[in-house]
Amino acid sequence: MKLNIALLAGDGIGPEVIDQAVKVSNAVAQKFNHEIVWTSALTGAAAIDAVGEPYPDETHDICMAADAVLFGAIGHPRFDNDPKATVRPEQGLLKMRKKLGLFANVRPTFTFPSLIDNSPLKRERIEGTDLIILRELTGGIYFGERGRKDDGNTAFDTCTYTREEVQRLAKLGFEMAMARGKKLCCVDKANVLETSRLWRETVQDMEKDFPEVTVSYEFVDAVAMRLVQWPSSYDVLITENLFGDILTDEASVISGSMGLMPSSSIGVHTSLFEPIHGSYPQAAGKDIANPLATVLSAAMMFEDAFGLKEEAEVIRSVVNKSLAEGIVTEDLAGKNKAYKTSEVGDWLAKNI
Amino acid sequence: MKLNIALLAGDGIGPEVIDQAVKVSNAVAQKFNHEIVWTSALTGAAAIDAVGEPYPDETHDICMAADAVLFGAIGHPRFDNDPKATVRPEQGLLKMRKKLGLFANVRPTFTFPSLIDNSPLKRERIEGTDLIILRELTGGIYFGERGRKDDGNTAFDTCTYTREEVQRLAKLGFEMAMARGKKLCCVDKANVLETSRLWRETVQDMEKDFPEVTVSYEFVDAVAMRLVQWPSSYDVLITENLFGDILTDEASVISGSMGLMPSSSIGVHTSLFEPIHGSYPQAAGKDIANPLATVLSAAMMFEDAFGLKEEAEVIRSVVNKSLAEGIVTEDLAGKNKAYKTSEVGDWLAKNI
Ligand SMILES: CC(C)[C@H](C(=O)O)[C@@H](O)C(=O)O
Ligand SMILES: CC(C)[C@H](C(=O)O)[C@@H](O)C(=O)O
Repeated sequence: MKLNIALLAGDGIGPEVIDQAVKVSNAVAQKFNHEIVWTSALTGAAAIDAVGEPYPDETHDICMAADAVLFGAIGHPRFDNDPKATVRPEQGLLKMRKKLGLFANVRPTFTFPSLIDNSPLKRERIEGTDLIILRELTGGIYFGERGRKDDGNTAFDTCTYTREEVQRLAKLGFEMAMARGKKLCCVDKANVLETSRLWRETVQDMEKDFPEVTVSYEFVDAVAMRLVQWPSSYDVLITENLFGDILTDEASVISGSMGLMPSSSIGVHTSLFEPIHGSYPQAAGKDIANPLATVLSAAMMFEDAFGLKEEAEVIRSVVNKSLAEGIVTEDLAGKNKAYKTSEVGDWLAKNI
Repeated sequence: MKLNIALLAGDGIGPEVIDQAVKVSNAVAQKFNHEIVWTSALTGAAAIDAVGEPYPDETHDICMAADAVLFGAIGHPRFDNDPKATVRPEQGLLKMRKKLGLFANVRPTFTFPSLIDNSPLKRERIEGTDLIILRELTGGIYFGERGRKDDGNTAFDTCTYTREEVQRLAKLGFEMAMARGKKLCCVDKANVLETSRLWRETVQDMEKDFPEVTVSYEFVDAVAMRLVQWPSSYDVLITENLFGDILTDEASVISGSMGLMPSSSIGVHTSLFEPIHGSYPQAAGKDIANPLATVLSAAMMFEDAFGLKEEAEVIRSVVNKSLAEGIVTEDLAGKNKAYKTSEVGDWLAKNI
């Protein structure tokens, strides 16, 4: 099979971790007789520096022509500390999501038995956790009208959702639940927000099409509590853009394996795969960042974008092997030898 | 001193826990020669049943005439499970906040040494946690324009903030930080929202008036992570209404002492004191609910509404004594004897 993949390394540690995912993907392709055509493109601060734009048209064209996008991370402290900056890496991210129609961000949270004690939560609270948060990614308050009035003294943002947007996301959620534990939790704030009431009534209407799925409706504040108290009680959660932003980040710390969590964004035009961690600028260029989340994102890509389940499993099992044998970067090494980012990538590729 | 207090018991376990706070307050008043005039009024489902309205005008008049309001809890599952209900207990809550001008909800989170192992988080993560979240309570998306378009197929909610609203809340935050650890964290989503940018620039402008306070600006998604990872790194956090709703609930589970956490809402016309837990309908009428959060809310009321610091300390120390001696309800009793709600209240009052 021929796989056309757009490669967006981005900023900070992005290029380093992406390199390892490429090595591993190439090794898998060779083993299974696939041909991967990688096309690199600029995003984020790197793109601003090169062409003044965080998501250049050329990058968009490359993504549109690809079968899937593998993404590193974007963001640079230079912009965070400058409130007057007019062009920012994050704008590139939002533009990319909108233009590629990446309407659903899929964020699994699961535990690795060998890493469970890294969690800030007690072992007995997180054992067995295996949940997915499905975050709507191209609607809501991120993309509504916003601005100032009264000489800049009043600001406003608008959250908008259409029934179709909710249906599209919820359908994915029901389907995922059917393929897993058959439990779906719709997270909203329907006791206050009209958009949440639209979410809730739309999901309620869809229940009859998925009679095997047990659906619950929970308020976002209650979920923010229960995710810390009993994460293992959840299966699939669906929610709107801003709630999803907060809850996926909260969920990412509970397993103790943030450096290992992959994610995907499912799109109308293509799909994108990326680690959930950020660009971690303090570590950039030092060959110390943990590449496993990006490698596992590549596994998700093989499975979800190309239907290559066996290839994905091969990647996952070599990652498990590296963890078991302690071929890990400094964040996981504890008192043992820490391997370099590139060494971990080499080891994984060799053991495919 | 004569203390005029409006007493809003509300729904579920509200009346039972309020009763204990009244006993304890009366004992303190007697000891220090104060006279308390309690005036009871209806709210929540109880008010809907009696007069068809969750925050009746008569209740509002009683609150306006009082020096402080002591509140139990509102909410009833009958309404949660009926999406078509047109009158809901929560509306009473929002109306009360708006009409009393309760612009700042103050939510402390601290640990009780004897209860620290109840937390879902590991001891070493939470030891020393002592933070306050200051949530803006009468603005933002809770009170903006909302509605439907396109035959009900599009819904919208509007988040609005004025510079004055931000200043009023932030000023309280700076003052609290000055009286505590001198650290203030402004929680926003300024990389996306215009209202957040107004928050951030307003707080930045105020920094010069409080040169001793160290101010940080953090995104709400990052704070949702760090609250679980390192809660003890925070001192005072200020944030807008919806972010505050989510983060205060998340923070409430980290100390392992949710049943003990008091809160206050500071208002233009009066201030309100209430436990952070809900109406817990499953336990209503059983004389088993933990009254300590409400008793500690009464302590907050003595100190903050009436400036009676010594009286507040007496209440806090008798609560600590009850914990140390195991005079506690079933949620805290473990394998030991569980006392009834009313027995705990009687013991506290007697030991004042
Ligand atoms: C950088 C920011 C705009 C972005 C978001 O809020 O969506 C990030 O937090 C994320 O979750 O991918
Ligand atoms: C009941 C609901 C409207 C309320 C809120 O969201 O403010 C509650 O969650 C709270 O935090 O007091």
